[in-house]
Amino acid sequence: MLQHRIEALRQIIKEKNLDGFLVSNFYNILYLSGFKTLTENEREGWMLITTKNVYLFSDSRYLNIKSQNSKVKNSNQKLKVITAEKGLIRYLQEIVVEEKIRNLGVEGDNLKISEFNQFKKYLPDIDFVPLEKTIIKIREIKDTEEIGKIKMACQIADKCLEEIVKTIKIGSSEKEIAFKIEFWLKEKNYDLAFYPIVAIDKNSSLPHYDTINGNNEEVKNGSIILIDYGAKYQNYLSDTTRMIFVGKPSQEITNTYNILLNAQEKTIATIPHRSRPACRQAGEAYGQLRLQTIDSFCRKQLSADYSYPHSTGHGVGLEIHEYPKISPSSEDLLLPNQVFTIEPGIYLDEKWGMRIEDTILIKENGAEVLTRFNKQPFVINF
Amino acid sequence: MLQHRIEALRQIIKEKNLDGFLVSNFYNILYLSGFKTLTENEREGWMLITTKNVYLFSDSRYLNIKSQNSKVKNSNQKLKVITAEKGLIRYLQEIVVEEKIRNLGVEGDNLKISEFNQFKKYLPDIDFVPLEKTIIKIREIKDTEEIGKIKMACQIADKCLEEIVKTIKIGSSEKEIAFKIEFWLKEKNYDLAFYPIVAIDKNSSLPHYDTINGNNEEVKNGSIILIDYGAKYQNYLSDTTRMIFVGKPSQEITNTYNILLNAQEKTIATIPHRSRPACRQAGEAYGQLRLQTIDSFCRKQLSADYSYPHSTGHGVGLEIHEYPKISPSSEDLLLPNQVFTIEPGIYLDEKWGMRIEDTILIKENGAEVLTRFNKQPFVINF
Repeated sequence: MLQHRIEALRQIIKEKNLDGFLVSNFYNILYLSGFKTLTENEREGWMLITTKNVYLFSDSRYLNIKSQNSKVKNSNQKLKVITAEKGLIRYLQEIVVEEKIRNLGVEGDNLKISEFNQFKKYLPDIDFVPLEKTIIKIREIKDTEEIGKIKMACQIADKCLEEIVKTIKIGSSEKEIAFKIEFWLKEKNYDLAFYPIVAIDKNSSLPHYDTINGNNEEVKNGSIILIDYGAKYQNYLSDTTRMIFVGKPSQEITNTYNILLNAQEKTIATIPHRSRPACRQAGEAYGQLRLQTIDSFCRKQLSADYSYPHSTGHGVGLEIHEYPKISPSSEDLLLPNQVFTIEPGIYLDEKWGMRIEDTILIKENGAEVLTRFNKQPFVINF
Repeated sequence: MLQHRIEALRQIIKEKNLDGFLVSNFYNILYLSGFKTLTENEREGWMLITTKNVYLFSDSRYLNIKSQNSKVKNSNQKLKVITAEKGLIRYLQEIVVEEKIRNLGVEGDNLKISEFNQFKKYLPDIDFVPLEKTIIKIREIKDTEEIGKIKMACQIADKCLEEIVKTIKIGSSEKEIAFKIEFWLKEKNYDLAFYPIVAIDKNSSLPHYDTINGNNEEVKNGSIILIDYGAKYQNYLSDTTRMIFVGKPSQEITNTYNILLNAQEKTIATIPHRSRPACRQAGEAYGQLRLQTIDSFCRKQLSADYSYPHSTGHGVGLEIHEYPKISPSSEDLLLPNQVFTIEPGIYLDEKWGMRIEDTILIKENGAEVLTRFNKQPFVINF
């Protein structure tokens, strides 16, 4: 099931004239092996892919024969148990001899200087080659299993918000609403994709308002509520932002919302078809369309008065910010089976802000919007 | 308030003949400045401490004058707003000229190879000196503010478990109990220190059982329940493990529990007084007692049949695993104002396991146990 992911990495190993690749990044190990330790940052697991073998290194808590990780046991990975007496480096010293490894790729954008120095010290005959964005670029294109899980995460998120908006009342606070989203998901054995941003009124004018440390604004009549949230289903994430209006919004707010919604929907609609403006403009063929072009297309849909100080979108998968990037400096190309967000915003200083965000899947014949919570102005009346 | 932390780092800058130190680690930045971004791993903030100044770098979402981070605004840190046009490196290029910086310390155990290479490329006249365990070793000794927050976290955790044990019933599952702990804390605007380990019966024999991905065992009559959990209060953590017995435990279980409890309490009691066994044994004066000695003292209290495949304890603070280490290979010394756990365990393969863990504070005149949930065999009868 994961073999094609390993083979994609082996292709790079071959292209770069390497004999193997040492994986240290928590999410890359999860992607390539299905193996996950309890902590993301404590280096409890490592993976080595050579032309012949796949090795997984971790301690007895995870690799014990009595351990619960059946996915690991059933695979054809060679499990190496790290102990106080025999650490990763000792195993590597053996394997490089056995497999005649001379050039070994490492994750330059993940490995720390001190770790790198240790490797060089204790494996002096090995040429370590730090590469960047190697596996994360493989992860940019989602496979069928991943797409299925992301779709589920999006459906769960839709359902969650449908239930949560029903509970919003005059006096509900930002943290209460965020907590309800969290509780709803966790009670059902799902999880948050990230801590929700719930920003009411003036707080919504800050594009990345911090709900936990904010002033915990409460819902009033006439409030505007920004909810940016996502669900996690079997390690895969969704990302949505919706605006909720309490009572009939003013003409100014309605107009601004419609401008924003139009920009967001037009950008999504224009994505896959080379005959549409974004592509025509840049003269790029389908499959060679730079996502930079999508970013600038979306910005142009808003009048000159409105700009947003963040990307138009980002890839979503095992992590909430992945490739591709949909930003002014992005060099990523549009490709089938990418999953990313489109999320323009309009922020009026000290007043209020709006953002509309969907997670979309790029298919051969068009973009599919995976997050489907209603985008018509959502008004709660009391 | 944080000035003495900065001065402790400046002392090291001086000792190492550096002109400044660039801080990249999320928790070290939080420790030195009170500044925290939304994500731990996306490099949204950096800090530079020179002999004269303290600089904080982040983007407009965090450093905007309209932003909510009042702690940052009120301090005497120089705030530098990172934009698409002007990134960290551009700022550093200016500052190293202004302040005549030649030797710059960096966090070798945090900075990634690719980041390091970028710095060397764009700041070719600077000698970058990767140091390890620099700020984390300063963080080992807690100041009054930190101790206050850790004590609060411990009290909150005690109260939480007292409430949660009342809700345990025949049929309660591991995830339900873990979820109740999480919910109890979050509802009150606290947080989890880490995802709780709730391990029932055979699962308790795995020292770091993964409750989220486990088989979600349910409470039966005669069950033994291991609960390893902690609370977070204003960024500071607690760490406790307790055993809960459902119905009167067997003689074997009671005996084993008493052996373990005796070992744990004797180890805590022996810590601060040089006249007591652990210290006498090693002939070490107070203040020079190696925590390795405490580790081996604790292990010796259990009979030869019982050993635990993990450390006797670890420091706790902003992170759940800090210095000092109380382990066979630890070279850390016992010092006043350290906060760490003592957590021996006994694990019977395929049968059950036990661990008793407290968070303790080292004071001049003795160790203070901060987590105070009852340690007498806790029996629930239905």
